[in-house]
Amino acid sequence: MSDTSLPPELYTALADLLGPSGFLTNSTDTASYCTDWRMLYQGKCAAVLRPATTADCAQAVTLCVQHGVPMVPQGGNTSMVGGATPDESGKAVVISTTRMNRILNIDHADLTMTVEAGVTLKAAQDAALKEGLMLPLSISSEGSADIGGILATNAGGNNTVRYGNARELALGLEAVMPDGAVLNVMRKLRKDNTGYALRQLLIGSEGTLGIITTAVIQLQPQPRTRETALCAVPNAKGALDLFAAFRKQDPAAIQAFEYMSGTSMGLVNALIDNCPLPLSEPAAAYALVELASPRADDSLRTLMEEVLGAAFESGLVSDAVLAESETQRQNLWMIREEHAEAQKRAGASVKNDVSVPLAAIPEFIEKATQACEALIPGIRVAPFGHIGDGNIHFNLVQPEGADPKGFLAQDHAMMDTVANIVRTLGGSFSAEHGVGQLKTYMMPSWRGGAELDSMRKIKAALDPQNLMNPGKIFPTA
Amino acid sequence: MSDTSLPPELYTALADLLGPSGFLTNSTDTASYCTDWRMLYQGKCAAVLRPATTADCAQAVTLCVQHGVPMVPQGGNTSMVGGATPDESGKAVVISTTRMNRILNIDHADLTMTVEAGVTLKAAQDAALKEGLMLPLSISSEGSADIGGILATNAGGNNTVRYGNARELALGLEAVMPDGAVLNVMRKLRKDNTGYALRQLLIGSEGTLGIITTAVIQLQPQPRTRETALCAVPNAKGALDLFAAFRKQDPAAIQAFEYMSGTSMGLVNALIDNCPLPLSEPAAAYALVELASPRADDSLRTLMEEVLGAAFESGLVSDAVLAESETQRQNLWMIREEHAEAQKRAGASVKNDVSVPLAAIPEFIEKATQACEALIPGIRVAPFGHIGDGNIHFNLVQPEGADPKGFLAQDHAMMDTVANIVRTLGGSFSAEHGVGQLKTYMMPSWRGGAELDSMRKIKAALDPQNLMNPGKIFPTA
Repeated sequence: MSDTSLPPELYTALADLLGPSGFLTNSTDTASYCTDWRMLYQGKCAAVLRPATTADCAQAVTLCVQHGVPMVPQGGNTSMVGGATPDESGKAVVISTTRMNRILNIDHADLTMTVEAGVTLKAAQDAALKEGLMLPLSISSEGSADIGGILATNAGGNNTVRYGNARELALGLEAVMPDGAVLNVMRKLRKDNTGYALRQLLIGSEGTLGIITTAVIQLQPQPRTRETALCAVPNAKGALDLFAAFRKQDPAAIQAFEYMSGTSMGLVNALIDNCPLPLSEPAAAYALVELASPRADDSLRTLMEEVLGAAFESGLVSDAVLAESETQRQNLWMIREEHAEAQKRAGASVKNDVSVPLAAIPEFIEKATQACEALIPGIRVAPFGHIGDGNIHFNLVQPEGADPKGFLAQDHAMMDTVANIVRTLGGSFSAEHGVGQLKTYMMPSWRGGAELDSMRKIKAALDPQNLMNPGKIFPTA
Repeated sequence: MSDTSLPPELYTALADLLGPSGFLTNSTDTASYCTDWRMLYQGKCAAVLRPATTADCAQAVTLCVQHGVPMVPQGGNTSMVGGATPDESGKAVVISTTRMNRILNIDHADLTMTVEAGVTLKAAQDAALKEGLMLPLSISSEGSADIGGILATNAGGNNTVRYGNARELALGLEAVMPDGAVLNVMRKLRKDNTGYALRQLLIGSEGTLGIITTAVIQLQPQPRTRETALCAVPNAKGALDLFAAFRKQDPAAIQAFEYMSGTSMGLVNALIDNCPLPLSEPAAAYALVELASPRADDSLRTLMEEVLGAAFESGLVSDAVLAESETQRQNLWMIREEHAEAQKRAGASVKNDVSVPLAAIPEFIEKATQACEALIPGIRVAPFGHIGDGNIHFNLVQPEGADPKGFLAQDHAMMDTVANIVRTLGGSFSAEHGVGQLKTYMMPSWRGGAELDSMRKIKAALDPQNLMNPGKIFPTA
């Protein structure tokens, strides 16, 4: 049974092109494609298109353009901002990259991997690992998020501090443009100055400028030495100073550098099984530092001990635990990774994925904490995140015992309070998650003037009918 | 005395805005701005505008747009491809960034430098050095090339293998857009997913999408350990295998990895004073490897000796010299840096700044050498370059004693021969130098279809009158 508003001619053409497993119109089949992962949006679609090849994808886009049908590209459907689901009109088709899921090549000379968009990040990581290499991008949704979506949103994560964001890792790209033409910039070149940076432009455009179908990703040798430590520091400034001390010795040794507030750590210790604080007493803040090197004989232990030794002497670090085994290392990382879950168990919470220049982090955390505590007495300000990138998940947990709904009713007041401070410090309202549908309203005030104007001109030039992922990034009206 | 075709109203407005030192119209004053560094093009201009501030630059652009006057942005005027000089019509103004030459800030917390476009790369490097930091970009024209021009052309150089090209180093940007609006994306953020990658798009657009006026550049700690070695290898594949052996141990330790053919090395040893071969006998090819680390106690010497030891055993390296002092290190680098000069002294030569995927380098060099030797008997095929980036300067020197003019008369045949091989291997006809005026004719056949089409659409959207650096990147017609 078909629940579609597609014109009959287009319906037939798409059905013929994509076959039964590539063309879903029954609303029970399409439902999961219409709701985002966070359940913020409940959309509808005229059909879900699941092309198995770039050529089919290009042909499907061409057909949709001919009939003026909007298209919503979708990867693993893990957007945090409703970036990959359709609106409620039911006019759009979802174009899923799921079936384009081949790993085409792993090149040991070039240290690259060529993958189709529908390969999950985890599958790509595993394939690299099997060949003794590392795909140096790690995010919490890596089991579902796919390469296409990761590039479309320029994903970041824990290892950005060392290897950059998704944009920096992609050496080549193939995409179906909004007119159905295939853009092939699949060159495996470190140096190529022959025209505009279309690859970089497509990456992070959240599907509004085309559908990424294949990519060349840079790999790294696997680390053979790792040193991981959890350190108690007096405050965020302490964590930042410790980061600077490691960076001064060797930026290339810092695989990850994470910050956790005392409040957020306290929730993990109290609410998550098997996650006690592995230090003698609670501190106001913590840093989790991981050093890594592909050298088997690298002197990372010495580096770790020297920097921490100096930090102990100067009072920067009051306590620390070094992982003495892979199990201990994984336990330290589990403590970091359970912050989101602990906050969920503590009641209602409001998430702010923000970034500021490194120098401004201490001021940001201090001011934003004070402002939120003044706004809602008893609020638990529980920030944590990738402090080495200036990226703080400034999360706010309801007061103990308070009514979750009453707390969430003030979510905009809290978000605006945080955002205003981020803004005065030259930061960003979305460090990792993108704009999607959720944050389009912020674009005019944050990115207005020549910036939004240039983006709109580029969008109109490449997608004059505004059919490719409409309603994302740009505010309507 | 004024030699200008500017409309009187515009003349007066620009003269008032920019003052006598910012507005040159006398042809003796403007002549040097109209000829490119390689003397390939002799253009004319209606005036040279030298704004001292971004506001003045924006106002000047606005005035020119109102009068439909073409504008040619110019930095240090060191383009290899005529990218920064006007055509012969005399209708355009040159907009020089020379007077915007302040270093605004060096930020030790963020490890960034904020500089105006007119600061030379050398001045920026020196300012970083004075603060104990390193600007990790090095090119041969760094004494004249300025930050604006370097970003506009996405310069590469010796350290790309470790730190990326100019595009990867810029964290923020300010530019005057083709309509005179100021685009300010001067955020010092490692993570910021709020719309399109305008910064990356402007970088490498060769002044056709706007004039870069200020930038935030990422810095690094200064290396405290260096190990440099010159190695004799059997061929380009040997150099590549040696690169892979170092990379397998630690990509982050490789500060530079350069290849030199035996032919090119022979010219240096024969024609340059104080540059004898520091090895026992000539080889077919050489690799210059430099390892570096900010760690004072880094075990780079061990790494160097272990990799070279294994390479000796396997026959990959037949001879090598390690620099035992800074003087010896500089001598090894001088040998590398004198290749261009040695080729100049050997007679007429044809330059090909190309790149191919790393895996294709041996095949490229072998095939291109054979093809050129077949084309011109006695030709001296003398490639060298940044093999770790896949970037080979595949230079061709005239046969000994031949007529230079007769040799140069076949330059297009030689360039096409090389280019065709590069193309079949998925390479680029311009790795570092850009397209400028010189290579626009290659764009349709190399970057045609959706790629050039998308570039044209973006150009037309942002510069509908085609006033910003016309005749560059895009072929006219």
